[in-house]
Amino acid sequence: MLVVMKHGATSNDVEGVVRAIETMGYGARPMPGEQRTTVGLVGNDGRVDEGRLVGLTGVLRVIHVSQPYKQVSREWCEENTVVELDNGVRIGGGDLVVMAGPCAVESREQILETARRVAAAGATVLRGGAFKPRTSPYSFQGLGEEGLQLLAEARADTGLAIVTEALDTESVGLVAEYADMVQIGARNMQNYSLLKAVGRAGRPVLLKRGMSATIKELLLAAEYIVAEGERRVVLCERGVRNFDTHARNLLDLTAIVTVHELSHLPIIADPSHGTGARSKVGPMARASVAAGADGVMIEVHPDPAQASSDGAQSLTPAQFDELMVDLEAIARTMGREIARAPAATIAG
Amino acid sequence: MLVVMKHGATSNDVEGVVRAIETMGYGARPMPGEQRTTVGLVGNDGRVDEGRLVGLTGVLRVIHVSQPYKQVSREWCEENTVVELDNGVRIGGGDLVVMAGPCAVESREQILETARRVAAAGATVLRGGAFKPRTSPYSFQGLGEEGLQLLAEARADTGLAIVTEALDTESVGLVAEYADMVQIGARNMQNYSLLKAVGRAGRPVLLKRGMSATIKELLLAAEYIVAEGERRVVLCERGVRNFDTHARNLLDLTAIVTVHELSHLPIIADPSHGTGARSKVGPMARASVAAGADGVMIEVHPDPAQASSDGAQSLTPAQFDELMVDLEAIARTMGREIARAPAATIAG
Amino acid sequence: MLVVMKHGATSNDVEGVVRAIETMGYGARPMPGEQRTTVGLVGNDGRVDEGRLVGLTGVLRVIHVSQPYKQVSREWCEENTVVELDNGVRIGGGDLVVMAGPCAVESREQILETARRVAAAGATVLRGGAFKPRTSPYSFQGLGEEGLQLLAEARADTGLAIVTEALDTESVGLVAEYADMVQIGARNMQNYSLLKAVGRAGRPVLLKRGMSATIKELLLAAEYIVAEGERRVVLCERGVRNFDTHARNLLDLTAIVTVHELSHLPIIADPSHGTGARSKVGPMARASVAAGADGVMIEVHPDPAQASSDGAQSLTPAQFDELMVDLEAIARTMGREIARAPAATIAG
Amino acid sequence: MLVVMKHGATSNDVEGVVRAIETMGYGARPMPGEQRTTVGLVGNDGRVDEGRLVGLTGVLRVIHVSQPYKQVSREWCEENTVVELDNGVRIGGGDLVVMAGPCAVESREQILETARRVAAAGATVLRGGAFKPRTSPYSFQGLGEEGLQLLAEARADTGLAIVTEALDTESVGLVAEYADMVQIGARNMQNYSLLKAVGRAGRPVLLKRGMSATIKELLLAAEYIVAEGERRVVLCERGVRNFDTHARNLLDLTAIVTVHELSHLPIIADPSHGTGARSKVGPMARASVAAGADGVMIEVHPDPAQASSDGAQSLTPAQFDELMVDLEAIARTMGREIARAPAATIAG
Repeated sequence: MLVVMKHGATSNDVEGVVRAIETMGYGARPMPGEQRTTVGLVGNDGRVDEGRLVGLTGVLRVIHVSQPYKQVSREWCEENTVVELDNGVRIGGGDLVVMAGPCAVESREQILETARRVAAAGATVLRGGAFKPRTSPYSFQGLGEEGLQLLAEARADTGLAIVTEALDTESVGLVAEYADMVQIGARNMQNYSLLKAVGRAGRPVLLKRGMSATIKELLLAAEYIVAEGERRVVLCERGVRNFDTHARNLLDLTAIVTVHELSHLPIIADPSHGTGARSKVGPMARASVAAGADGVMIEVHPDPAQASSDGAQSLTPAQFDELMVDLEAIARTMGREIARAPAATIAG
Repeated sequence: MLVVMKHGATSNDVEGVVRAIETMGYGARPMPGEQRTTVGLVGNDGRVDEGRLVGLTGVLRVIHVSQPYKQVSREWCEENTVVELDNGVRIGGGDLVVMAGPCAVESREQILETARRVAAAGATVLRGGAFKPRTSPYSFQGLGEEGLQLLAEARADTGLAIVTEALDTESVGLVAEYADMVQIGARNMQNYSLLKAVGRAGRPVLLKRGMSATIKELLLAAEYIVAEGERRVVLCERGVRNFDTHARNLLDLTAIVTVHELSHLPIIADPSHGTGARSKVGPMARASVAAGADGVMIEVHPDPAQASSDGAQSLTPAQFDELMVDLEAIARTMGREIARAPAATIAG
Repeated sequence: MLVVMKHGATSNDVEGVVRAIETMGYGARPMPGEQRTTVGLVGNDGRVDEGRLVGLTGVLRVIHVSQPYKQVSREWCEENTVVELDNGVRIGGGDLVVMAGPCAVESREQILETARRVAAAGATVLRGGAFKPRTSPYSFQGLGEEGLQLLAEARADTGLAIVTEALDTESVGLVAEYADMVQIGARNMQNYSLLKAVGRAGRPVLLKRGMSATIKELLLAAEYIVAEGERRVVLCERGVRNFDTHARNLLDLTAIVTVHELSHLPIIADPSHGTGARSKVGPMARASVAAGADGVMIEVHPDPAQASSDGAQSLTPAQFDELMVDLEAIARTMGREIARAPAATIAG
Repeated sequence: MLVVMKHGATSNDVEGVVRAIETMGYGARPMPGEQRTTVGLVGNDGRVDEGRLVGLTGVLRVIHVSQPYKQVSREWCEENTVVELDNGVRIGGGDLVVMAGPCAVESREQILETARRVAAAGATVLRGGAFKPRTSPYSFQGLGEEGLQLLAEARADTGLAIVTEALDTESVGLVAEYADMVQIGARNMQNYSLLKAVGRAGRPVLLKRGMSATIKELLLAAEYIVAEGERRVVLCERGVRNFDTHARNLLDLTAIVTVHELSHLPIIADPSHGTGARSKVGPMARASVAAGADGVMIEVHPDPAQASSDGAQSLTPAQFDELMVDLEAIARTMGREIARAPAATIAG
């Protein structure tokens, strides 16, 4: 931590900062410069409260050198975390994991047909919302537990693992009973009660980046989950808020590289929500793989024009088949394969 | 709703759109232009699902003319909503309501001293967090129910109404027992389970704008609460995400004017979180009043250097006293007064 | 300047950084911490090139403590700069300067009528574009020198000073011949050739903040002008890019406070471009004054519906009359007056 | 164009709009809805001025259906524009064009060594700044004409085409004498005088997207150049402003897909400026190719630690060699090759 003094700070002011730091049990190193003096704090164990320093006379601002997240950081654990789901698919282990399915579970036929088609094309995880967070209270809010049951049926039928969203602390237990991986959506990335609850639910977690969350905030949200004991956290880049309206969100693929540098957790990309438009999903899925994502999540619907939500960004099964060929080719240029699910093979 | 056809769309494509609209029970009006044809949908009652139209051949995009929010809109109710708290203070009734207090309740002495000082200066609502949403799991998370009890004690002592945040569906009932107004924080603006729960809690609600929420999303979040039966909703502008780092957030005062145009709900401003720096709170509080805010919420702490959170943006009681003089003077130029609390007067 | 080492940096790496700093002629102070070591650079005169340090083994990043702007900084000159125009009006001297006029000069009648009306209402500077930067090449681009002549005629008639925009290095001399203050528009804030040219043109400059410029970039743009010898620079906040579409831009009034803290230059606000909508101009002009702006710039047009550009954000003369009453009242609560022009009084 | 009436607009108001539209020579189609009436304008040739309509009583807002850009639009010309440089390399013709070189030309040795290395690795265009736009007036501003001469020498030596930036209308002629393609930088994207000048300079143009420019604004900037007669325009995505600080800019790869949908002009990506960090350049260059970019522009410096600008984002020649292998592999999965320069082969 570095305390930057104002231009006109007196030597008394500097002395006051030094004393305050020493009172807290750390060392202080004043460094005079042409424009201003700065005081370095030596021996910071990450628990120094800057509030004790910003209020002192002559202090301009405090600069943090250490990051506030710990267990999720690359420095805490150099080796990549690999999250293994119940069907044996491993996220973060080098191969490219493909998750696919409709935005929402709408009916038995819809989810079974989609599951079979995406499994046949090489996906190993089925996505589909049973509880839907909708911007308007008057929009379709999902089938609830019936949706979870239909997902479980699709899993039994195809060997796909299931990822589906939990919206609140009440339902997280129910979702965890059915799902192989519990999703926390972008709108809930800083819903700390939910993060704590999912950290105790005993299931791997897919944590989506918030609408305008910094990477630091994303990692701190993951830290909430890990701090509760659940280390199997997969992050997901799904686009951030943007001033342009040509795409629904701005898919920030550089975030994949940044997360890999700062953290040992795997990160996937969701080009469907990340662009909001069918014609852009394929190119951005390919780009996600080329940027080094550990997986991609793609919305697929047997009849997008009839989808109850997000139809405009869903691929048809035939479009998804074509995309899988491209993704595999790009993965191979990087020495990677599409991840297979050992358990699924047995079930199939 | 307007369906915009692609440049090369054929008359068959246009005919297909017309048929689809008529099948849904509405009228269709094709309008040929130089660049492209558009098809207007006549008689829209707000329930048309664009998903049925965007998938059709030749369709470029769909433009919404109506807003998806209803009960919170100015068109639903022309007259301003006035939210009256238990101590008689009225928000949205013309006078300027001042809410003040520390970021978090820290101790009996701290909250009582603050309450007495801000009440003496003319505030009528006491703010203070008992449950704190913190970016890091390792930061102070609030005193919990003990904090609520201390707030209640401060209310009994001063006649101030109390506003404090609820973080999840489990605790919203508890918070509603103690608080005169339940706050939903920026991070939870799209936590729909919480919005529904607070809409049934029987207390007025203070809804803060999310970190990068559009005005439309803010009004839809309020619609969730109103749809559950609670019409006493006060909105709060508290700054949005920003590319510059000179201020913690970018306080969007134009939002106050926009909300007043689009909605009958009152809106206040929070220049403390909106700027994150003590030296900027005063000027932006004054600007909020001049822009027409129905109230302001100001962080005040008896000893900001010792605050457990947000010390850097808290005013001292003496600074708050001075600010109140300025706010009253500006309010009067607009024919407004600082709101008094009839009940508080009796209690005092 | 502070060099932050990677977590796993060796003592050899730290030694390498120390040597590099000492080779550059500065002192080095290593500070070991729990997570990482940092090395402070002592005696920085603002000319250290971080490129020499970021490439060294074990270096994570370099943190700048000093600001790159110099002559425009408050630390360079504590006293406020006051910019006096030829008609005697002083910007930054405490009183509130009101600049008003149409977006573009369209005709003799239009500019003369507007000038008389805004002068009568208390404005002391007339705005009006003769060279217009337009997003589309097919939009009206201004009357050119004829527009400048009409502005000069309006000045002679009313005693108002004139501010008008220069678009390029070729025309800046011509504009400077006619104008009392030369405006550099938001799109040209980082057009460094133009900044240098206007810095040598011998006229006070009104420099508008770029569409997404940080305060640091705004001050560095001003530094370009001052470095050429022209110290009479007035800054202008006119709204920044934004993810919401309810307003054309997001007027960042906190920038006024920030600029006053960091720089001695005056800063005004332009709520017309800052909001883009007539109904929002009045409230945000009032807010600008309450936030401490040294002046405001307001678009006024005798018949906004017929304006060749920006009609939607122009006030009528009658609306401007009303606004002036409000602005004067708010200014007075802060001990300020609407600035008068001594020369104009004589001319009137 | 669609005129949206206010909720309470009377039939007289609607009639007024209809009359105004008919007076302008177009047809009007009123469409009553539950919430409001809208009036469609039929026969719009792109020249309707909304200012005539927004001022009318009862009008809420005007929605544009057509885009303001014309000659650059896909609808104006369905076939892709292919820009051929003097060494025979073709941009937009299917193959992937690689441009590489230092941020700035610093010396004869530096530019010649870099040119040889990047040519050997397969690049066909050499980048390098002779006139540098720098945020601070005190930073290195480039070698000027000497830099251009060194670039020409490197061209003669290697057969590479040259792209270099023009900063103002005075120097655009000089730059055009030396360069095969004239670059307009992000800060000048809306410097309309410069756009017009470069449109008459007789050279292909590389137009970089502005710091926070929408795609519409980027295409309108290109329209300025094309409107002057120069159709050989290549666009460049180089990252936009962002609230996160982990990367210098936010590289918006979806923009590549959007531009290909809306325009016939080629678009390349600049992952060096788009990320600002060496470790992120490779992954994002690969992602750019996978997203469908017509080319990439990469900063390469023989000794990044000694670079006069942007050293932190420059690759070493060895890193560039490795990257070229990856880019070629990804291009081939999409049926594309790295573009060769026929003329360069002869020269080599």
